[in-house]
Amino acid sequence: MKATCRALLAVRGEAVVSLADQVIRRYRAFDTKTRLAFFDFLAAELECVPDDINAAYDTYRTEPNAGTLQALRDVLETPRLRLFRALNTAPTATQVMVEMRAVLIKTLPAHPHLDPVEADLFHVLSSWFNRGFLRVRRIDWTASASVVEKIIDYEAVHEIRGWGDLRRRLQRDRRCFAFFHPALPDDPIIFVEVALTDELTNRIATLLEQEAPADPMPPVDTAIFYSINNCQPGLRGIEFGSFLLKKVMEVLEAEMPELNRFSTLSPVPGLMTWLKTNHTSPALAWLEHRSPEFFATLSTSTAPTLELVQNAGASLETACAQYLTEAKRGIFPLDPVARFHLRNGARLERINPLGDLSDNGLRQSAGVLVNYRYVAAEVEANHEAFINSGEIACHPSVEAALTARAGDEPSRRET
Amino acid sequence: MKATCRALLAVRGEAVVSLADQVIRRYRAFDTKTRLAFFDFLAAELECVPDDINAAYDTYRTEPNAGTLQALRDVLETPRLRLFRALNTAPTATQVMVEMRAVLIKTLPAHPHLDPVEADLFHVLSSWFNRGFLRVRRIDWTASASVVEKIIDYEAVHEIRGWGDLRRRLQRDRRCFAFFHPALPDDPIIFVEVALTDELTNRIATLLEQEAPADPMPPVDTAIFYSINNCQPGLRGIEFGSFLLKKVMEVLEAEMPELNRFSTLSPVPGLMTWLKTNHTSPALAWLEHRSPEFFATLSTSTAPTLELVQNAGASLETACAQYLTEAKRGIFPLDPVARFHLRNGARLERINPLGDLSDNGLRQSAGVLVNYRYVAAEVEANHEAFINSGEIACHPSVEAALTARAGDEPSRRET
Amino acid sequence: MKATCRALLAVRGEAVVSLADQVIRRYRAFDTKTRLAFFDFLAAELECVPDDINAAYDTYRTEPNAGTLQALRDVLETPRLRLFRALNTAPTATQVMVEMRAVLIKTLPAHPHLDPVEADLFHVLSSWFNRGFLRVRRIDWTASASVVEKIIDYEAVHEIRGWGDLRRRLQRDRRCFAFFHPALPDDPIIFVEVALTDELTNRIATLLEQEAPADPMPPVDTAIFYSINNCQPGLRGIEFGSFLLKKVMEVLEAEMPELNRFSTLSPVPGLMTWLKTNHTSPALAWLEHRSPEFFATLSTSTAPTLELVQNAGASLETACAQYLTEAKRGIFPLDPVARFHLRNGARLERINPLGDLSDNGLRQSAGVLVNYRYVAAEVEANHEAFINSGEIACHPSVEAALTARAGDEPSRRET
Amino acid sequence: MKATCRALLAVRGEAVVSLADQVIRRYRAFDTKTRLAFFDFLAAELECVPDDINAAYDTYRTEPNAGTLQALRDVLETPRLRLFRALNTAPTATQVMVEMRAVLIKTLPAHPHLDPVEADLFHVLSSWFNRGFLRVRRIDWTASASVVEKIIDYEAVHEIRGWGDLRRRLQRDRRCFAFFHPALPDDPIIFVEVALTDELTNRIATLLEQEAPADPMPPVDTAIFYSINNCQPGLRGIEFGSFLLKKVMEVLEAEMPELNRFSTLSPVPGLMTWLKTNHTSPALAWLEHRSPEFFATLSTSTAPTLELVQNAGASLETACAQYLTEAKRGIFPLDPVARFHLRNGARLERINPLGDLSDNGLRQSAGVLVNYRYVAAEVEANHEAFINSGEIACHPSVEAALTARAGDEPSRRET
Repeated sequence: MKATCRALLAVRGEAVVSLADQVIRRYRAFDTKTRLAFFDFLAAELECVPDDINAAYDTYRTEPNAGTLQALRDVLETPRLRLFRALNTAPTATQVMVEMRAVLIKTLPAHPHLDPVEADLFHVLSSWFNRGFLRVRRIDWTASASVVEKIIDYEAVHEIRGWGDLRRRLQRDRRCFAFFHPALPDDPIIFVEVALTDELTNRIATLLEQEAPADPMPPVDTAIFYSINNCQPGLRGIEFGSFLLKKVMEVLEAEMPELNRFSTLSPVPGLMTWLKTNHTSPALAWLEHRSPEFFATLSTSTAPTLELVQNAGASLETACAQYLTEAKRGIFPLDPVARFHLRNGARLERINPLGDLSDNGLRQSAGVLVNYRYVAAEVEANHEAFINSGEIACHPSVEAALTARAGDEPSRRET
Repeated sequence: MKATCRALLAVRGEAVVSLADQVIRRYRAFDTKTRLAFFDFLAAELECVPDDINAAYDTYRTEPNAGTLQALRDVLETPRLRLFRALNTAPTATQVMVEMRAVLIKTLPAHPHLDPVEADLFHVLSSWFNRGFLRVRRIDWTASASVVEKIIDYEAVHEIRGWGDLRRRLQRDRRCFAFFHPALPDDPIIFVEVALTDELTNRIATLLEQEAPADPMPPVDTAIFYSINNCQPGLRGIEFGSFLLKKVMEVLEAEMPELNRFSTLSPVPGLMTWLKTNHTSPALAWLEHRSPEFFATLSTSTAPTLELVQNAGASLETACAQYLTEAKRGIFPLDPVARFHLRNGARLERINPLGDLSDNGLRQSAGVLVNYRYVAAEVEANHEAFINSGEIACHPSVEAALTARAGDEPSRRET
Repeated sequence: MKATCRALLAVRGEAVVSLADQVIRRYRAFDTKTRLAFFDFLAAELECVPDDINAAYDTYRTEPNAGTLQALRDVLETPRLRLFRALNTAPTATQVMVEMRAVLIKTLPAHPHLDPVEADLFHVLSSWFNRGFLRVRRIDWTASASVVEKIIDYEAVHEIRGWGDLRRRLQRDRRCFAFFHPALPDDPIIFVEVALTDELTNRIATLLEQEAPADPMPPVDTAIFYSINNCQPGLRGIEFGSFLLKKVMEVLEAEMPELNRFSTLSPVPGLMTWLKTNHTSPALAWLEHRSPEFFATLSTSTAPTLELVQNAGASLETACAQYLTEAKRGIFPLDPVARFHLRNGARLERINPLGDLSDNGLRQSAGVLVNYRYVAAEVEANHEAFINSGEIACHPSVEAALTARAGDEPSRRET
Repeated sequence: MKATCRALLAVRGEAVVSLADQVIRRYRAFDTKTRLAFFDFLAAELECVPDDINAAYDTYRTEPNAGTLQALRDVLETPRLRLFRALNTAPTATQVMVEMRAVLIKTLPAHPHLDPVEADLFHVLSSWFNRGFLRVRRIDWTASASVVEKIIDYEAVHEIRGWGDLRRRLQRDRRCFAFFHPALPDDPIIFVEVALTDELTNRIATLLEQEAPADPMPPVDTAIFYSINNCQPGLRGIEFGSFLLKKVMEVLEAEMPELNRFSTLSPVPGLMTWLKTNHTSPALAWLEHRSPEFFATLSTSTAPTLELVQNAGASLETACAQYLTEAKRGIFPLDPVARFHLRNGARLERINPLGDLSDNGLRQSAGVLVNYRYVAAEVEANHEAFINSGEIACHPSVEAALTARAGDEPSRRET
């Protein structure tokens, strides 16, 4: 295999294809251990040569011009990177390299010396999976069984319980759109599920359990983006979500000019973790005061029960508002979903306690879901303010939830 | 425009798309002069900063590790390159950048300071037009009018005189295959025209003027590749031809196992130029001796006439054999078509005087055409020998043509 | 061949396919004379048997019930008809039978005894080319070269002068739609050409010579149907035109809600013939008085010149109005194009002298073209009034043209 | 509705489409009772008029010629038939009429006066679903979810237990082919499931439970057609099966020349019913003698158990051979599956006791399955002999099974 890789780096023209094909086939047949050995080879033996770098730099320093600069660049490009490009001449190679990076990412924590291999794969994949090469396709019941099956497999936000459940999600008051890349024609890169309704939906069960409407289709004015899923762990770190949202909004607006509200119904994946981590902080004193039973679970390892969550009521709205607006990583929200939509220019529209009462919903966010709303006229200003100063556009209802703590905290301080 | 480009380099996510779209639209509307100003901007203001390079190198030198190495690489990547990647999020951007490089290539001789801009475009286009993303399609009369029209426009080897002529070249004893890229769905990258025959054709007119066979299709055993055309000047320097030939041979073998001979009928674009340049050289003394009338035209600026060429006869076979095997650039043949096929592993099978009697054929090669033959069992060995030592695989008939000089030269030397 | 046809009528199941295939292949290879012999066979030997008819009728008469009625029907169905159905199991059979009927139609005048053969073909083809099986497709430059070539061949109203001319007719301010049948996937049944404009166009040259608009597309509010062509003479008598017009109007309205005027720019194929035939009639006395030079050509066999037509001016508008509203076949207009559009519910909107100054236009209608306009709200009432009483919906301008005669005629009578 | 139907019969051209559309929409909304009333209307009011028939016949009798004959035919065509043709101009009308006939067929036993309505529907559907308009498509995992779901629903021979089971039946050692009609683009008309193996499979469980082979695909020489299903009850009586089998054999032979055995593994749907009906007949005396326990169940209403069937062993082979070769309807086998394959020219190759041990298999045929084998060189002769004299081509093993009775019967007679 090593010899074949080295030969592949030496040849040009069509001879590349058959060597690349050999490498790809052998790699596919490798077991876990042999793969690791192959990664070690890539890391150790297809790396830049420090002496060459130093020499090229010295030449450049002595005589800085376009030629010496390019020569310096050339020695800084790893042979590994050129190998990855050469491999891509073989059939299915792109897919294999996406899978290879997925394996590498899992392997990295235990084998940090493979970092540069992963970085080179990221470099070529970023170039190949450029937005310009992605095509949006609507997935409905005429999509191939193969694609539909993958949608079921990849849905991670709100599990699809079999083909019947998926069919419901593809009926005429629902939409599903995915990005596809020409090199993976039957394998979605990312997909989003949308419900067409006449309200700003606050509970996921409303969408998942509703029957499809009979003729005639009732009027709709709202598109709820209720699930968005990256499908390829091997493409982690390459931006797809914001491109897909933008494109889908364009497609929906063109198809149905009557839509005047675009909003998500999104999970709050970090809420319970943050509450548990911070339950001893004075900042949450008001919660202990207001909903002591719910607060008591924060010091345990169990998820809150449906009953606790129902009793906690508006406290959860306030707690979530606090988490989203005050818990930070740098100047940006700690919550990854909030970070994603707010950076895209959405505003924090509404916090919905009892939004997702599934086991997963209770465990990760005590059942809370959030609507992030995209208002075309505000998106650019929101995005700028967020990027530059971390400012979060909020609906007044969210601000009201935040100030609701005020009445409680002083009284507690007095104690 | 400058401001938009700079903004584009600053933003992330979907905001990129609309800025990229603006740049692309404006660029398309530019006239020649404004384009040149834009290229100047790209060259001057989106270049790497020497101080940053030096600083990054110093850090790397002091503490050489994966992180400092990557940081050095990062400062060596021009902002221009990142701009090109960001532009590719806009619709039609790939096509516009291919056209941009075609314009740049024409501009370079007069504006060499734009070299680094062209180099960066080559870098991204090489990555995007990787063999793995190309699809071969057979072009026949069911192809779209749009594609068929482009084939007519792009054919440069043997001009297609209108739709009727092209239709003939797509009938059932002919084939046309092209590579397409997903970002240019209706625009071929390169195409090859093939004739299915029962002989090693030696004259192009035989192929171009022949009527399509009536039912039943007569038996064939030979595929003659008689025209191969790169369609996109903006992709110059990216290898497509050898990949296409290999793929088409595979396709034809699978479709028609009865084919046992794959050969080109190729032009010799540099023959007349070489003869004219070298007509005072002793190496061509034999030609003066043997075909004095033809030889006399070499010192003039006119093309040889049909009559001269007919009289010159076998001398032209010998002269062409001498040109292909002795005229070199480095260790490889001077003739670009010869270099291409020999590097691919073909052998020099036969030299055909009177092969192409069109004005262009007379002018560039005194009417000579060459068959390069691909013999599967020899291709790899031929390729290796050629690459390593410039060795050219020849059919004995070609060697015979070379030694045919012997009788003449001594006699001349005696004079 | 006769034996194969008889065998085909005797077998069932898959054995039918290979026999049908044999008949179809042999028929295709027949020369004109053998085809005629084959038609004679179909006429003479695959006819109903009078004795069987009489017997079946007697049985039915004696005992009239569903069974005896069906038995009577069965003996009235010719074996020929069953042969045609059986033939249609073979590949390309539908197309061959369409061509067969085209040949028969030409043959009928000289061989009227083949009438029943043609009638049976019409019967099966009517069933197979039912509106329900036709699909409308827009033809643009992405259509296959094969289809585009056929459009050029089939255009009979305003000749297409090569691929360049057709490309113009497919650009973004033009449309071309055709009906296709699954059994003839690359062969249009009928097509219509449409221009998108901002006026009720009165001259065909305006449409044919206009350059395509640059960006941005200028606003349009009118669709002009300027050419409609049946492509398959073998399908004569089966209605396609009105279905296609209706469908295309639906498609255009859905695509461009800004269109508020749908009109034809139509030829008047029978005008000159009618004028010439009736030039001695008192009804045309006014024309002799008003445009004596033009009138003089009516008694000759030559077409009017451009100069004559220009001088005749408004007289031609009146003459055409008279022809369209007063020349009848039964209660309906004599002119076939008028009959077609008026029956569909259009109104006679405007008569355009100097509308078509081509040789053909001068010869058939002294250059006159007519706009028939489809006003959605009137179509049904117009259609009913036309069908029931031959009433023609006219724009006031047409009525004005008619009454324009009045001033002249009395004065002439006085003479 | 009646008025709309009558109007539809009166109009021509595009006015037909909107009326037809109205009728189709209303019919779809009808409940069972209203549908029946609609059928009554079709039967009673859109029937031929006896006086017209008599008058047309008298005219024909007096003056028999093509015109009077056609006039007679015309009055014999029911207005209902013309209504059905007119309806087919509406979108989805073909599908609705297929469903309408399915409903009618179920209704007929209780409402025999609707027979002529069903007959007219059969007439138009036979014409529209002519073999020439059907296209074969391979169904694999790239087929649309919609089509795949229908295959699951329609499979009646060997139930498909969910999407996973179907996926197995579409893997690379399996094939599924269906006929589609352009008017029902996503709804198969008939499909066949094929297993590629290296033996003449005798048990269905072998095929259904086998895992898909790993790489490389093991060699195969046999195609087993193990399930064939008509999907549209509304098309009952129109021949599709033999056309599909013939076509699929062609497709498989072209794809895999190594296949040299084409056979079914077929159910024997009438075996147990025939045994139970005839258990008192002397013809089955041998069975009572040989397998008394199994014989005892024939007089009960229960299905034989697995144990009984296992004990009966070779007796079942003989009993089935007797049933297939001796139980007749006219000169042909009573068993519908036998009739179908033998008429197509297959031979009775092998009888497999214990072939299908599912509940359904035990109930209908005591677990017996049959291989009918298609030997290309014999098909035509077998078909002729079967059609003309009911002769059944049998493998010697089947004849041996029949003569196996001999030893038993005489001894029983002695008793």
